[in-house]
Amino acid sequence: MTEKLCLLLFETAYERIGRRLEKFASMVEFCRMTKDGEIHTDTGTVDAESFDPNLAWLSMDLMYHGKVPDFVSLVTGSDELQWVQTANAGLDNPVYGRIAATGTRLSNSDAQALPIAEYVMAHVLSFFQDIEGRRQAQRDSKWRYRPFREVSGTRWLIIGFGNIGQRIAARARPFEAQIVGVRQSGASHPAADEIVTQSDMLAQLPQADVVVLACPITPETEGMADANFFSAMKEGSVLVNIARGDLIDDEALLAGLAQDRPAHAVLDAFSTEPLPKEHAFWSHSKVALTAHTSNAGSGLLARGDDLFVDNLAKYLAGKPLLNEVDMAAAFPGVGKAK
Amino acid sequence: MTEKLCLLLFETAYERIGRRLEKFASMVEFCRMTKDGEIHTDTGTVDAESFDPNLAWLSMDLMYHGKVPDFVSLVTGSDELQWVQTANAGLDNPVYGRIAATGTRLSNSDAQALPIAEYVMAHVLSFFQDIEGRRQAQRDSKWRYRPFREVSGTRWLIIGFGNIGQRIAARARPFEAQIVGVRQSGASHPAADEIVTQSDMLAQLPQADVVVLACPITPETEGMADANFFSAMKEGSVLVNIARGDLIDDEALLAGLAQDRPAHAVLDAFSTEPLPKEHAFWSHSKVALTAHTSNAGSGLLARGDDLFVDNLAKYLAGKPLLNEVDMAAAFPGVGKAK
Repeated sequence: MTEKLCLLLFETAYERIGRRLEKFASMVEFCRMTKDGEIHTDTGTVDAESFDPNLAWLSMDLMYHGKVPDFVSLVTGSDELQWVQTANAGLDNPVYGRIAATGTRLSNSDAQALPIAEYVMAHVLSFFQDIEGRRQAQRDSKWRYRPFREVSGTRWLIIGFGNIGQRIAARARPFEAQIVGVRQSGASHPAADEIVTQSDMLAQLPQADVVVLACPITPETEGMADANFFSAMKEGSVLVNIARGDLIDDEALLAGLAQDRPAHAVLDAFSTEPLPKEHAFWSHSKVALTAHTSNAGSGLLARGDDLFVDNLAKYLAGKPLLNEVDMAAAFPGVGKAK
Repeated sequence: MTEKLCLLLFETAYERIGRRLEKFASMVEFCRMTKDGEIHTDTGTVDAESFDPNLAWLSMDLMYHGKVPDFVSLVTGSDELQWVQTANAGLDNPVYGRIAATGTRLSNSDAQALPIAEYVMAHVLSFFQDIEGRRQAQRDSKWRYRPFREVSGTRWLIIGFGNIGQRIAARARPFEAQIVGVRQSGASHPAADEIVTQSDMLAQLPQADVVVLACPITPETEGMADANFFSAMKEGSVLVNIARGDLIDDEALLAGLAQDRPAHAVLDAFSTEPLPKEHAFWSHSKVALTAHTSNAGSGLLARGDDLFVDNLAKYLAGKPLLNEVDMAAAFPGVGKAK
């Protein structure tokens, strides 16, 4: 009988799906990090100093409880690490550089993509239909026929055409919107009417009614939405950022809003989070902002759980993982140690 | 050379699309009703008493200007009426009974279906994501992670699966909602996962997260949403009425809202319009109401114009009309005079 693999996960995640993990119990020992930072197994408590997990699941629970740093210390302290599943999509948090440096395999998550796509549709439709104005008219008992802007016939430029961008496209296109995706590879995709590369982005902006930032933050994309970007935007257009705050030069966006390029910005990510109280976005009449919450759909946890259980089964069976990260491409120059 | 057909239309509609009608000028004389009720042709003014139009276009413009009754009097006073195109979808306005009694052919419009479908999606998403709460949090400078309800995985019961119901389904389904349509014929439809008939409606209600009323008002459907209907609804569900106010028993809906069956009602049509100031819906925290404005999309007029021009070409060429109404079915016992 071979030794069991030690899998580290957070206690609330284990409480939720422990029963679904029972079928793996002959091959895996489930080691639960508690909120106090202790490590519990079925047989007792393990000393963190001598703890070398083989597998780890960085679940949403950790983020809710602010326990990511503690958890990652246990993970990166292991000499036996083989695979990490994370609930994140973007890997720009420095902890992923530390995880990459261990030489482990890593798979990320597409569980956020679906709620983020719903968030984008909700905010564009709410703006086009002036949902707030409608509710105000109701409070004022005003009966008034109010024309509204249709999504039909609009052109969307989705910058970053991965899991998130594709799901936005799949929802906007049935509204008879025209979808242009900006994709590094430039390869066509069935969810888009047209795919272009980043070098064509500026040329596309003047035609776009809705521009969505859905790309990772990299040295190439940081500060991408600058004064040139906003000057090129169509008057009356909408900007949505559900990716990372550092994609946008905030001062340039404020100047753009003053020119109605864009006329409305939906922002869910900021360079500093929480967004500082004194920031001009909070009270700006053309900004709708939320607290990095576009992923917070009711199905998020269950979808992340399903992905983890599926991937664990694949890992144990030696099959290809879902959403495995190309570490050499994602972390160039890192992770060569092993 | 045969005599030209006389087509009656409203002056603002003619001003908008007169140039597109030039190609029909050898066959049709365009007679414009002015806001003052005069009838103008290219050669002068026509006396209303001796005016017998052959064709008529009841465009949206008439409704905006409150000139439908005057226009319809000119239409029904004609001894030579052959075809009427209307911008309405529903034909429950008594003027259509009078038009039917002339024995004319009539085609209605599906131009409203698209904006109405966008309206429904905007309101369901706004409720699920608490767009108002998000904007309030922004006004209060509150940074807070707020979970929201996903459309994904919800079940929609769309009562009435015509032009409007189908377009709602086509937009909700890509969100991974399950679509059940209630259709008189019971015939399956590619936009729905399941089609049932009205006799199955009550049995479907307990499973439905979103219920949309999108059916015509008839003796069978009047007061359909009554105490039994609301008792059968799922707790926490949403009701949307973009059809006719008389489909709903208002007192029963108020009692239903008190039980969260439904938890939220989106209402765009009322038994009395404008909705009387004293009506409980105005200030109800679980009601989002609008002034029969769900059709008011920015593309509405252009779409109605296109339909009219297409249908006029078809009429003159003797081809089948788009959206021709089955008069015997729609107006039983009426229109046999001719």
